[in-house]
Amino acid sequence: MRYLKLTVAYDGTKFVGWQVQKNGKSIQGELERAWRAVTGEEIRITGSGRTDSGVHAIGQVASLCTGHSIPASAIALALNAHLPNQISVIHACQVQTGFHAIRDATAKTYRYTIQTGPVRSPFLQDRCWFIPKPLDCLAMERAGQHFIGTHDFASFQSTGAPRKTTVRTISQFTVQRHSESTFPTIDMEVTSNGFLYNMVRNLVGTLVEVGRGKITSDEIPKIIVAADRAAAGPTAPAAGLTMTEVRYESSKLN
Amino acid sequence: MRYLKLTVAYDGTKFVGWQVQKNGKSIQGELERAWRAVTGEEIRITGSGRTDSGVHAIGQVASLCTGHSIPASAIALALNAHLPNQISVIHACQVQTGFHAIRDATAKTYRYTIQTGPVRSPFLQDRCWFIPKPLDCLAMERAGQHFIGTHDFASFQSTGAPRKTTVRTISQFTVQRHSESTFPTIDMEVTSNGFLYNMVRNLVGTLVEVGRGKITSDEIPKIIVAADRAAAGPTAPAAGLTMTEVRYESSKLN
Repeated sequence: MRYLKLTVAYDGTKFVGWQVQKNGKSIQGELERAWRAVTGEEIRITGSGRTDSGVHAIGQVASLCTGHSIPASAIALALNAHLPNQISVIHACQVQTGFHAIRDATAKTYRYTIQTGPVRSPFLQDRCWFIPKPLDCLAMERAGQHFIGTHDFASFQSTGAPRKTTVRTISQFTVQRHSESTFPTIDMEVTSNGFLYNMVRNLVGTLVEVGRGKITSDEIPKIIVAADRAAAGPTAPAAGLTMTEVRYESSKLN
Repeated sequence: MRYLKLTVAYDGTKFVGWQVQKNGKSIQGELERAWRAVTGEEIRITGSGRTDSGVHAIGQVASLCTGHSIPASAIALALNAHLPNQISVIHACQVQTGFHAIRDATAKTYRYTIQTGPVRSPFLQDRCWFIPKPLDCLAMERAGQHFIGTHDFASFQSTGAPRKTTVRTISQFTVQRHSESTFPTIDMEVTSNGFLYNMVRNLVGTLVEVGRGKITSDEIPKIIVAADRAAAGPTAPAAGLTMTEVRYESSKLN
């Protein structure tokens, strides 16, 4: 048996999310169906994280274990021929025996995009949160700095998928305004050793409250310490979120 | 009566094109419907050019003549409230009496985007021509230089909308490769005092033949001189084309 690592990009708009569900098409389900069409094998393909419906990826990582002899270098093109246009396998490679996309991940990065007003871009409608009123981007940047470090992020965990511990370490949180285009955007990028359910969308929803002047950046530490979902801001819409990268220890890969 | 100039952006994927047609929704039809909803007026809104189905715009210009008193500064938001998400009015302003979006245009700019391989981007599927095999971008750039100047572009006019003269003046033709992303693109930008039917898509289709090595850049002048559609390359797909800017003499505007 060989262990393989797939890197996958998708536009999540028309899917129920990563995970196989009965009520619609999932990214995982489409990948498993394509794998079966190529190899005849019925296998499970495990994603590094279960992105929700409407969430996108340019660097989702999935792992699988196969008895089929297809060369790793032929896998991306073979699977893409059987996948809908909204899903593309970018890369496939053989990895160490036992490699597991969730368990072995050391860090993940997400990007969240807000389009600011006054006019909605026809090209970003499924890819961002449209907020026509001006946001104080510098205050959002200052607020984001408080997230960096090891904290209990219970205030930013939505109900529905509880974890043993709500402590996570955020190593990077950036806020960047791109105002040169007809449709200005604010991109936030966050890297952590792991994320709680809806954590990025809850962090972003809270920063937008700062950007709107409803709370100050100095209040963020108190919101973290409260360890109470009600203390933080609302959940930002799924469409603005993209999983961009998942990192692994090199010893697991080669 | 006041004359108004609208600047409009749209994702043309789900429309029959700019012009009102019986077989589906058009950009023009949606704008006229929104204008009626806002003002009660049944009027014609004239676009600077009739983009085909699947062609996009970030700077289409339209003109109209109205007896309604709505302030120019309120028009974009008012119309956008009645437009589908794929169409946005970016700007509206009052212009000189008699202003006409087609007749008074002095230059138009289009951008054409090719995504190069090996893997199709899930995010660009309706916005580019996907060509997985490598293209010789430098040869395409050299070939594009031959288009600049005043020429008879009959070789690049599709049948269906003949013009009195097929002579046009191209003032700019650039070819730029963006290879840093996971999904590399080649952007072509062309500015002319006017375009024949399908002219940009026929110029691009011919440059791609150069990029594929089927013809050399030195053959372009001969293809132009032939003044024969059969001498040039095929018509590039609509999805890659975006109308980016229309220019007018300032005396017509203020």
